[in-house]
Amino acid sequence: MNGAECLLRTLLASGIEVCFMNPGTSEMQFVAALDRLPDMRGVLCLFEGVCSGAADGYARMAGRPAATLLHLGPGLGNALANFHNARKARSPIVSIVGEHTTEHLRYDAPLTANIAAFARAVSDNVCLVGAAAKMGALAAAAIEAATRPPGQTATLIIPADHSWSDAGDPGPSVNANARRMPAPDRIADIITLLARSPTTTGLLLSGSAMLRRGVEAAGRIAAKTGARIFADRNAARTASGRGRFHPERIGYFPEKAEAQLAGLRDLVLIEAKAPVSFFGYPGRRSTLAPEHCAMHVLATVEEDGAGALESLADMLPQMADPAAPHEPEETAALRGDESLGADLIGRCLAQRLPEDAIVCDEAVSSAEPIWPWLLRAAPHDYLPICGGAIGIGMPLGVGAAIAAPGRKVVVLEADGSGMYTAQALWTMAREQLDVVVIVFANRRYRILDIEMRRTGAHGFGPRANDMIDISRPDIGWTKLANSMGVAAARVTTAGEFAVQFSSAMREPGPLLIEAML
Amino acid sequence: MNGAECLLRTLLASGIEVCFMNPGTSEMQFVAALDRLPDMRGVLCLFEGVCSGAADGYARMAGRPAATLLHLGPGLGNALANFHNARKARSPIVSIVGEHTTEHLRYDAPLTANIAAFARAVSDNVCLVGAAAKMGALAAAAIEAATRPPGQTATLIIPADHSWSDAGDPGPSVNANARRMPAPDRIADIITLLARSPTTTGLLLSGSAMLRRGVEAAGRIAAKTGARIFADRNAARTASGRGRFHPERIGYFPEKAEAQLAGLRDLVLIEAKAPVSFFGYPGRRSTLAPEHCAMHVLATVEEDGAGALESLADMLPQMADPAAPHEPEETAALRGDESLGADLIGRCLAQRLPEDAIVCDEAVSSAEPIWPWLLRAAPHDYLPICGGAIGIGMPLGVGAAIAAPGRKVVVLEADGSGMYTAQALWTMAREQLDVVVIVFANRRYRILDIEMRRTGAHGFGPRANDMIDISRPDIGWTKLANSMGVAAARVTTAGEFAVQFSSAMREPGPLLIEAML
Repeated sequence: MNGAECLLRTLLASGIEVCFMNPGTSEMQFVAALDRLPDMRGVLCLFEGVCSGAADGYARMAGRPAATLLHLGPGLGNALANFHNARKARSPIVSIVGEHTTEHLRYDAPLTANIAAFARAVSDNVCLVGAAAKMGALAAAAIEAATRPPGQTATLIIPADHSWSDAGDPGPSVNANARRMPAPDRIADIITLLARSPTTTGLLLSGSAMLRRGVEAAGRIAAKTGARIFADRNAARTASGRGRFHPERIGYFPEKAEAQLAGLRDLVLIEAKAPVSFFGYPGRRSTLAPEHCAMHVLATVEEDGAGALESLADMLPQMADPAAPHEPEETAALRGDESLGADLIGRCLAQRLPEDAIVCDEAVSSAEPIWPWLLRAAPHDYLPICGGAIGIGMPLGVGAAIAAPGRKVVVLEADGSGMYTAQALWTMAREQLDVVVIVFANRRYRILDIEMRRTGAHGFGPRANDMIDISRPDIGWTKLANSMGVAAARVTTAGEFAVQFSSAMREPGPLLIEAML
Repeated sequence: MNGAECLLRTLLASGIEVCFMNPGTSEMQFVAALDRLPDMRGVLCLFEGVCSGAADGYARMAGRPAATLLHLGPGLGNALANFHNARKARSPIVSIVGEHTTEHLRYDAPLTANIAAFARAVSDNVCLVGAAAKMGALAAAAIEAATRPPGQTATLIIPADHSWSDAGDPGPSVNANARRMPAPDRIADIITLLARSPTTTGLLLSGSAMLRRGVEAAGRIAAKTGARIFADRNAARTASGRGRFHPERIGYFPEKAEAQLAGLRDLVLIEAKAPVSFFGYPGRRSTLAPEHCAMHVLATVEEDGAGALESLADMLPQMADPAAPHEPEETAALRGDESLGADLIGRCLAQRLPEDAIVCDEAVSSAEPIWPWLLRAAPHDYLPICGGAIGIGMPLGVGAAIAAPGRKVVVLEADGSGMYTAQALWTMAREQLDVVVIVFANRRYRILDIEMRRTGAHGFGPRANDMIDISRPDIGWTKLANSMGVAAARVTTAGEFAVQFSSAMREPGPLLIEAML
């Protein structure tokens, strides 16, 4: 079999059965092989940033990699921003990038670029396949690298001649690497710490510790000790919603985050790093915990944080008075005459999000008012933008919907960010994905209003304002969605939003709701 | 003054007065400074690939750099594909990329990335500004590097604290470097060569030699010697249209290109490299000239190819019988019942393109039938996609229109490529640019039909076809354009196209015409 077929068969042998792609000449053999390998699902995207964002969403929900297939250096270039996000999410992805033929590479043809340089910016595992005969083994090694905890994008750069040449047998099936439990003495140390000073000790969860098992165990630890449990706001996937324990999510701006962490003398990290602010600002330090707060590692990013938390919860004695069970307040019914804003949309989510939904959050400046309402919504999975590179919301929704058919996907999308990768709408329509996109249309890079002040740039005149104002011309999101085959509605009142949202939760997607804020 | 203002003043001092931008937190000081520096025109783009493509178009038409202002690694990532094209076009660009504060960089914050690694993939001149006090000097050095022939993207990575700190005076004004004339003996050698064997010697032009002066001189050389004159199909800008001399453009596929170059024993390169095919294919070599054809350099890519051609033309004796002046055939009048295709659109251009128009060509599979018609159109400048990275057509139009107000810009855009950076439409509407976009809507990555066969992937079943077919769902280009404030018309017949195109040539843009092929 040729190299392309060998590679796809190696992927299939390890359970990788979805490939988000935008192929070109150098990748034609992979495309041709799809007809011989019906188990591999090719998902066409009109822009490579949709491929990489979708692969991230897929990995977060499926817990295993998808592949991406991209065309040479520039194709990979277009995917880099969302590969950056995937790197921060620690999502396993096998990124396949076609290259010129070995013979052709020595000439500086128009599309010749340093693909490895593009790839290394987001991928610590970059391999140029040097011979067709090595294809199976190198593909298996890439799968191993991608899935080895904590997960990463592994890149295979494949000269076209190695795709069309004979490659022999596929590589071996790769068993998913389980996360290792931390050493028992590390758990014992944390027990000692919590016993000594429960009220000045915090736990900070990220990574796989934010899934259901970890969050539940963290809740038991809080109940037994009174310790405060925090959540990394950039964790790839969080088990959220009512009936679940809710770690305190560390705020975006450092003032809030520092206030949350004030008084801590010890912070225990579970698949998390010591918290830092998103940006540096004049006259502020970057770290968020109190200056003399000691950091302790219960589980590294590679280890089994959920398992560690479960052990800890099991082994801890009851040290604090059990808190009264938290009774969530009733969410007030919506009234049609309320103003349409992020808070109201949050309440709608709290009341009407179906059980087991997946919420992809790229609402940016609208996200903070919504987030507390999600805690009262039906149990769901919450996927934020992990690396701060905007343009992932809708692609994430594509990948999540393909990974989890039968579950409603809701994308909370800022209008500025949404315009980065709006091509994702086309793939939603093409694959008939059950995705509802809510566009928070404030016609502005609103977050920059705040950042402009924070960075000390006080002179905010009309010409500066013009670089933040995206109202001229007005972006017509319903037309934009329709142009790519997605039904859409524009709503300007709370009542209209509630009607559209309720209907969207009952009917299969895709649908876009443009909420005029 | 702070670092941001110092940088912008340094740019202005060297005549750089346009900045295509999509800024974020780290770049707020640059944005704020716009109100203090009214000579700097900020052009907001909704996606960074539009910024880099527009800067390329601007540089090709203005002959001097624009700046781009992008947000951190991912923002630069989104711009890389069109920076790749700009690199191959050898366009001078000053790329400004904001970075976290010096203090913040040591923490692995979500948006932290290796910006220099992103930049080096497309820029040979990458500078991290290490102190505010160095801003002026380093900015001037970047301008010098960008404008030094043959031209390149020079990247300045600027930590946010150096933007808001005191930076002292702006850097010196940088004088544009003129291209050097090649040494006289090189010109003498080529005269000897042409005198010895004019009919087996070809000249291959690229770079600045393809502008009016160079092309005109090449025409005189052809008339004096009978030597064949060829054009690099990827030259950044070509003086084209009727009344001008037309070098023979080397074909895209190697079979055609080899046939064109057959019989040559010597090829003289003027700002050009030895011709190679776009892709490598099974069983074919990459080089296009006959195997024993000797290469001679009249002017390197850094030198003054046009000046060298003029000297050569002046110094050559008349060696061949002067050819009869070439009388262009009359372009047949259009009939309303003809079928709408690339050939017909080419004839429309031949008849109705206004004088001094700028044609940006990303028509891909539709480009070949159009190109010969452009030779009969009114004199114009022709800008192709130089690096093969699709998604540059409309951004190129944005930049060209801003560089050359008063000239009609026509973008020939393939539908697959257009979907990469359709956000450019929004900037066309915002800046009220006189651009007409013609979308060649064949609902297919049509070029891949050919490439699929050429790469030996014969098994082209329905699942492979599905990765090349973009008709499902149908893309509604008129809705898409309207959603971003651009008027649009869909045409399905030759008559409709002729009416819309004629009207578009008379009325100011922007306008999009979706031609259903």
